[in-house]
Amino acid sequence: MPAKLILLFLIIFIVFSENEGFRFKHMKNNYLKSNNSNSGYFYKTLYFKQKVDHFGFINNDEFQQRYLVYGGFRPTQDGGPVFFYTGNEGDITWFCNNTGFMWELAKELKAMVIFGEHRYYGQSLPYGKESFKDPTKLQYLTSEQALADFAGFIDYLRSDWYPGQKVPVIVFGGSYGGMLSAWFRMKYPHSVQGALAASAPIWQFTDLVDCGAFLKTVTNTFKHHNPTCADNIRNSWMTINKVANNSHATLEKSYETGRKTIGDTFKLCKPLQSIEDVGTLKAWLQETWVDLAMVDYPYPSNFLEPLPAWPIKGVCSYLSKPLTTDVSLLQSVYQAVNMYYNYTGKASCLDINQEATQDLGTMGWDYQACTEMVMPTCSNGKDDMFEPVEWNFDAYSKQCQKQWSVTPRPMWPIIQYGGKNITTASNIIFSNGLLDPWSSGGVTESLSASLPAIIIPDGAHHLDLRSTNVNDPKDVTQAREKEKDIITQWIKDFYN
Amino acid sequence: MPAKLILLFLIIFIVFSENEGFRFKHMKNNYLKSNNSNSGYFYKTLYFKQKVDHFGFINNDEFQQRYLVYGGFRPTQDGGPVFFYTGNEGDITWFCNNTGFMWELAKELKAMVIFGEHRYYGQSLPYGKESFKDPTKLQYLTSEQALADFAGFIDYLRSDWYPGQKVPVIVFGGSYGGMLSAWFRMKYPHSVQGALAASAPIWQFTDLVDCGAFLKTVTNTFKHHNPTCADNIRNSWMTINKVANNSHATLEKSYETGRKTIGDTFKLCKPLQSIEDVGTLKAWLQETWVDLAMVDYPYPSNFLEPLPAWPIKGVCSYLSKPLTTDVSLLQSVYQAVNMYYNYTGKASCLDINQEATQDLGTMGWDYQACTEMVMPTCSNGKDDMFEPVEWNFDAYSKQCQKQWSVTPRPMWPIIQYGGKNITTASNIIFSNGLLDPWSSGGVTESLSASLPAIIIPDGAHHLDLRSTNVNDPKDVTQAREKEKDIITQWIKDFYN
Repeated sequence: MPAKLILLFLIIFIVFSENEGFRFKHMKNNYLKSNNSNSGYFYKTLYFKQKVDHFGFINNDEFQQRYLVYGGFRPTQDGGPVFFYTGNEGDITWFCNNTGFMWELAKELKAMVIFGEHRYYGQSLPYGKESFKDPTKLQYLTSEQALADFAGFIDYLRSDWYPGQKVPVIVFGGSYGGMLSAWFRMKYPHSVQGALAASAPIWQFTDLVDCGAFLKTVTNTFKHHNPTCADNIRNSWMTINKVANNSHATLEKSYETGRKTIGDTFKLCKPLQSIEDVGTLKAWLQETWVDLAMVDYPYPSNFLEPLPAWPIKGVCSYLSKPLTTDVSLLQSVYQAVNMYYNYTGKASCLDINQEATQDLGTMGWDYQACTEMVMPTCSNGKDDMFEPVEWNFDAYSKQCQKQWSVTPRPMWPIIQYGGKNITTASNIIFSNGLLDPWSSGGVTESLSASLPAIIIPDGAHHLDLRSTNVNDPKDVTQAREKEKDIITQWIKDFYN
Repeated sequence: MPAKLILLFLIIFIVFSENEGFRFKHMKNNYLKSNNSNSGYFYKTLYFKQKVDHFGFINNDEFQQRYLVYGGFRPTQDGGPVFFYTGNEGDITWFCNNTGFMWELAKELKAMVIFGEHRYYGQSLPYGKESFKDPTKLQYLTSEQALADFAGFIDYLRSDWYPGQKVPVIVFGGSYGGMLSAWFRMKYPHSVQGALAASAPIWQFTDLVDCGAFLKTVTNTFKHHNPTCADNIRNSWMTINKVANNSHATLEKSYETGRKTIGDTFKLCKPLQSIEDVGTLKAWLQETWVDLAMVDYPYPSNFLEPLPAWPIKGVCSYLSKPLTTDVSLLQSVYQAVNMYYNYTGKASCLDINQEATQDLGTMGWDYQACTEMVMPTCSNGKDDMFEPVEWNFDAYSKQCQKQWSVTPRPMWPIIQYGGKNITTASNIIFSNGLLDPWSSGGVTESLSASLPAIIIPDGAHHLDLRSTNVNDPKDVTQAREKEKDIITQWIKDFYN
């Protein structure tokens, strides 16, 4: 069980991006018109000077925060709403390229499109390459500072790009970006008219949801395709332990041989040299199942490696029948993960230390998970298909102290953002796909007329934010229609 | 013109306080019952451990924040609402002793009474006596940190004092404390059901209101009693300048003699040794007129020195007729301020360096005014009765850099708290007395059904928060009735 699950996003690249270097200081209203020259989507890359510390007055350092801006859909130079993506834990171009719905809706509603990069990710590093080396330089990586960045930029946008005009701003975000969108509307409601918070697990915090809910949802997504598949995965952990510890009569007597058997079966790039390596293998397998539930999309997509439509269906095809021998079970699990990591058949071995994607800032998120973003997870092996692991905050906290010299404050986000008591907020759409593990920490029932929950039964991780696809299930199409109607109404309400 | 006007509060002490030292760790639900032994009001002094830095994870320092608690009105150990005063820039016992209406209403509505002390004031000093010596120790003095303190305490209160219970919390505050109350409901609406923000100038920030409005309101309060009084004060500045510069033919020829004439006329404790001292005199006079408008209460009260009812009426009795000679004007101004500072006749001289009260943390507020709380003021001598002084942010900022090594960010509170775009908030009462200069930066028209403005035409600075008095004008009695009705409804709504 990895101590901190990272919020992963799919990275299917759509060919509409064109990153043109451009300094923010050159940005003028009249410049924005000049973008709409091609039929494809383009954006300009701009930089906005931010205070490193919004909440104190001693550190006067500033940094350049990256923004991607496209104004080509606007009806005139002066009109129309602004769609603003509250960037999350990674390179903003990646999110920009995976949020096609925002582009489609912007075209339809004639909106300016802006993607704001989260501080400490991508190019928006307050202290450049030194940002992560020194705790005193890293301390400004918090969600509050990030929200203040966005608030400062939107304030600038209104006063400098739209002086004297009424400009409705709608924020969009998926996953942690969706949490930021929701929190932004809660904390800065004067700044934005509404938020579409897709797959935003704002309740994935201590005591708000059961720590087992996340992995239970992963399991359900596998069961949804094939119950036996989940059973086989559940059985695989004990088999791996047994073989690794070589307690099985049919295998050789030494531990090394047991680990070699596993390494050979999984065609690992590096042999399993210790029992810790076996732990790494299991963590990697667990993360693989989690990732698969997140990207269980209805059409071929490209997550690290190319994947077919409904990839869990493909993975589970190897695990669809009861596998009663250790050898057959391990072999089948290998075939399943091999389909995930090696669908094209080009890889000669599997690397269990491989990161999900270079586009996510794993260092940054690791720090955030060690400070504010403590999202307890656990498993019991009954309600889920994973090895039983209790949530152990003390061990988690010790690891954070060791790694970052910080002590997590798990209750702080609840004090700050209200936990489950958020009905005084308004104009936030919470959308969740039920295949997505993160739906377990999301708002899946409407909290009020202006805090609607939209459920996408056949949806994985913020499927609704992705571009329209011919293979979209009806429920995601309906979700997008609802979202469009609500956002359209927010804009109307703003002008009236 | 003082660069930064301090938010002053009246300090009429009511004999209901009894400060008993008590450590927070001993605080238990069953303890709270034991207070209701006497007919008078008592409170326990408790301390709650707070993080010095809520918004970062590097500084792990903690400090003891003071809270005054009274549980004697509660119907049973477990029931009733909580009234919470969001302390402002001074010793919390002072605010506690000057907010009688909160006590009266708590008795009627059976509420627990809590006064929370603002960090860096009174006894709640994060670094003890060192708190103000070092900029790195002072940097945690911000409104955001103060609100986070209150949020953390209320979270603790709910979970530890009222486990498993539904507890409505209403926040109260006057002046800066009222701003904090309003902002607290805006930023932490999950924490409290509503706020009574009395005389809270939440719009006294850059470009939100005219910088001249504040001193114009002071002038109007004087005019309200006697228009000639305001004219005489307006004329006094030039007379002081003229006499100090000795350009008047009837006076001796040297500057020293001119200043001596003024010093003698005003019976100053120290002679005016330089032209700077004359500036200090004028600033002191201006502050006196401002303070008088703030405490123009309808009954005898005690602000620094004892005052009669409607003190401006008394002060203006010396300035009610046109005073055409320099001597008569200066002499009358002296008599007026002498009534303010020396109503009992005990003082042998007037001290122009005297601070308004020791209970206000002038150092702390000065720092806050140099960071977030930039409240522009100006005068033109036409719409107001003061010397024309333009608002000069650059000079103000330089002074802040010199004094505190900080540069003010005047737009930050608007970005953070929304400026005039706050209609998404709810359950905040904005009450303002029209005699009070701070009403010029307050919300004096209802913004929505749940953001009502209550106007008290004959009210000075948060008169409504003070104890009931037989001489209260009808409009403050009506205001309190309205406030009671609204707060009662909030509590009802919470339980339903």
